[in-house]
Amino acid sequence: MSSVANPSGSGMAADIAEQPEVFARLLDERATAITAIAAEIARRAPRAVIFTARGTSDHAALYGAYLAEIRLGLPASLASPSAITLYGARPDLRGCLVIGVSQSGGSPDLVEVVRVAREQGAITLAVTNAPDSPLATAAELNIDIAAGPERAVAATKTYTAELLALLLLIEGVRASGGALAADERSALSALPGLAAQALSDPTAVEIAGRYRFAARLVTTGRGYAYPTARETALKLMETSYLPALAFSGADLLHGPLAMTDPDVPVLAIVGTGPGGRSMRDVLTRLGERRADLVVVSSDVDLEGFALRVPVPAVDERYAPLLDILPLQRLAMALALARGEDPDAPRGLMKVTATL
Amino acid sequence: MSSVANPSGSGMAADIAEQPEVFARLLDERATAITAIAAEIARRAPRAVIFTARGTSDHAALYGAYLAEIRLGLPASLASPSAITLYGARPDLRGCLVIGVSQSGGSPDLVEVVRVAREQGAITLAVTNAPDSPLATAAELNIDIAAGPERAVAATKTYTAELLALLLLIEGVRASGGALAADERSALSALPGLAAQALSDPTAVEIAGRYRFAARLVTTGRGYAYPTARETALKLMETSYLPALAFSGADLLHGPLAMTDPDVPVLAIVGTGPGGRSMRDVLTRLGERRADLVVVSSDVDLEGFALRVPVPAVDERYAPLLDILPLQRLAMALALARGEDPDAPRGLMKVTATL
Repeated sequence: MSSVANPSGSGMAADIAEQPEVFARLLDERATAITAIAAEIARRAPRAVIFTARGTSDHAALYGAYLAEIRLGLPASLASPSAITLYGARPDLRGCLVIGVSQSGGSPDLVEVVRVAREQGAITLAVTNAPDSPLATAAELNIDIAAGPERAVAATKTYTAELLALLLLIEGVRASGGALAADERSALSALPGLAAQALSDPTAVEIAGRYRFAARLVTTGRGYAYPTARETALKLMETSYLPALAFSGADLLHGPLAMTDPDVPVLAIVGTGPGGRSMRDVLTRLGERRADLVVVSSDVDLEGFALRVPVPAVDERYAPLLDILPLQRLAMALALARGEDPDAPRGLMKVTATL
Repeated sequence: MSSVANPSGSGMAADIAEQPEVFARLLDERATAITAIAAEIARRAPRAVIFTARGTSDHAALYGAYLAEIRLGLPASLASPSAITLYGARPDLRGCLVIGVSQSGGSPDLVEVVRVAREQGAITLAVTNAPDSPLATAAELNIDIAAGPERAVAATKTYTAELLALLLLIEGVRASGGALAADERSALSALPGLAAQALSDPTAVEIAGRYRFAARLVTTGRGYAYPTARETALKLMETSYLPALAFSGADLLHGPLAMTDPDVPVLAIVGTGPGGRSMRDVLTRLGERRADLVVVSSDVDLEGFALRVPVPAVDERYAPLLDILPLQRLAMALALARGEDPDAPRGLMKVTATL
């Protein structure tokens, strides 16, 4: 599987390291095109936003749904493709914005959902890394995340590029197609530097050894941090075959908490705002159960009762673009520690055809 | 934990066994009230349906979303409470039907979502087992599932009662408040007998021993069967602390398939319609990986390459009310085999307060 010329994980490592550059490229080269699409959407004033995606892109879509609901005040949700593709549902989607998110743009079921949505009167938008793909062609509007070819099978840079593209889109709609507010532009322009900073910290890689013999793991976060918890779990499953269960902090208290004990490591994403504050109760409950707790947080005070993977302190709205970075490195380091090749997990293909 | 007078699991066993009776009671005593609510909703012709729920009830809500989309042709989705409760989102919900589903009706975050939704112009409906609960009071309309007090902490009869209440509601809206079609009435009236039949088969309990030493488990299904896969995973986690990962058949092929090998048991819910047919590819792929496969299906032909838990053959739309029944028994039997008390899992409370 590995060779001196191309050691295991070199592709995933390169994809991960490229993310600050991918952010800078999106901000420099794609922002104008995204602003134009945002202006067109703002002009047509959708009454709801529906995302359709699978796998890693589903977590980017989840972030987009939080953004649309919180920043635009629009009902936003993720669609189950099978209602349309398997059972022939033809919902009335006039005035709805339907956004398909897919790295490859090649999943037949997402293409079908977007095609039907367009027929049913929706404004349709594809967010892909492949502007000539069937999904991009099926949608009326199209955002190219321009992340470049992915070297590893497990998605990393295309995930964060999707997040940033959706952030630019939603903030652009919020600005009604006009210029973003100065503080928003300033926060966005800081992201490439903050991403480089998040990637330079060694803690996540050091912690990976801790999970060498873990039989399972729980990830948790609330609000904007929940997509990060979900994506972390998927990345660990894809590359290390570690059964990782993601729960919103609220859902964790509703049942699966029974599963946590000192033998079950818990990775908690704890932000600086309402989502992070609402996690304090969850952390207390986990502490009472003596769970093995690691927090991904900018808050030094949390070191009092948990190992901490440091991340830059930003508004929770931007945190998903940064918090996942050390966790991608953790997943990769764990895969290597377990003798797996994170570039080519067994049983995985890049484009998965499901209808 | 256990005693001769009240052995471990006797409460959960009684809850499970009561389900045919709960179905009959809902059909006999609650159908008129639900039809009246359906008529009121049909008159107001919502343009979209948004569910809010947590834990087991979230899986009932997922079933409701499939029903609303497929049977009513309405965009339907599950809301993330935190957008409203943590980040103060105030989406315009005029013309939307917002349905809160909760056994206890006591979760503060769901109460808050329904309260805000009502302020924001939504038609609001609570589906609970507690008609005087805060959730039932916060909503304009209210369905009492009348399942009686639950003996065990892990929800069983209230889950299937929520499913049936949502089925009666959606079919009632479809009939625009008039009488259900004769074939629909006939199918519904058969459910108590079919539930008794599903519960009488010993296979699921026999199979439980097989998982005595399993370190993890994967459940999968597509379309209407996906809520069953999710609920099965939660029930196994709550009662046996077995890390169980639920994936839609489509998502499983997108990454987590890498996790499946002969050491990872897979429970697949395979229906008689489009959802079940679309699982055939997934079963083939799992077979290629030599996964330990058990199917929950009415299709005898599947016994060629997997152990089968038999369930009655019904339209996939009704299958979630029946397929879960042997799986509840499996979860309970596994908990007992592992020396746990399924009536009182560690770390679980009946009403969980999250905001």
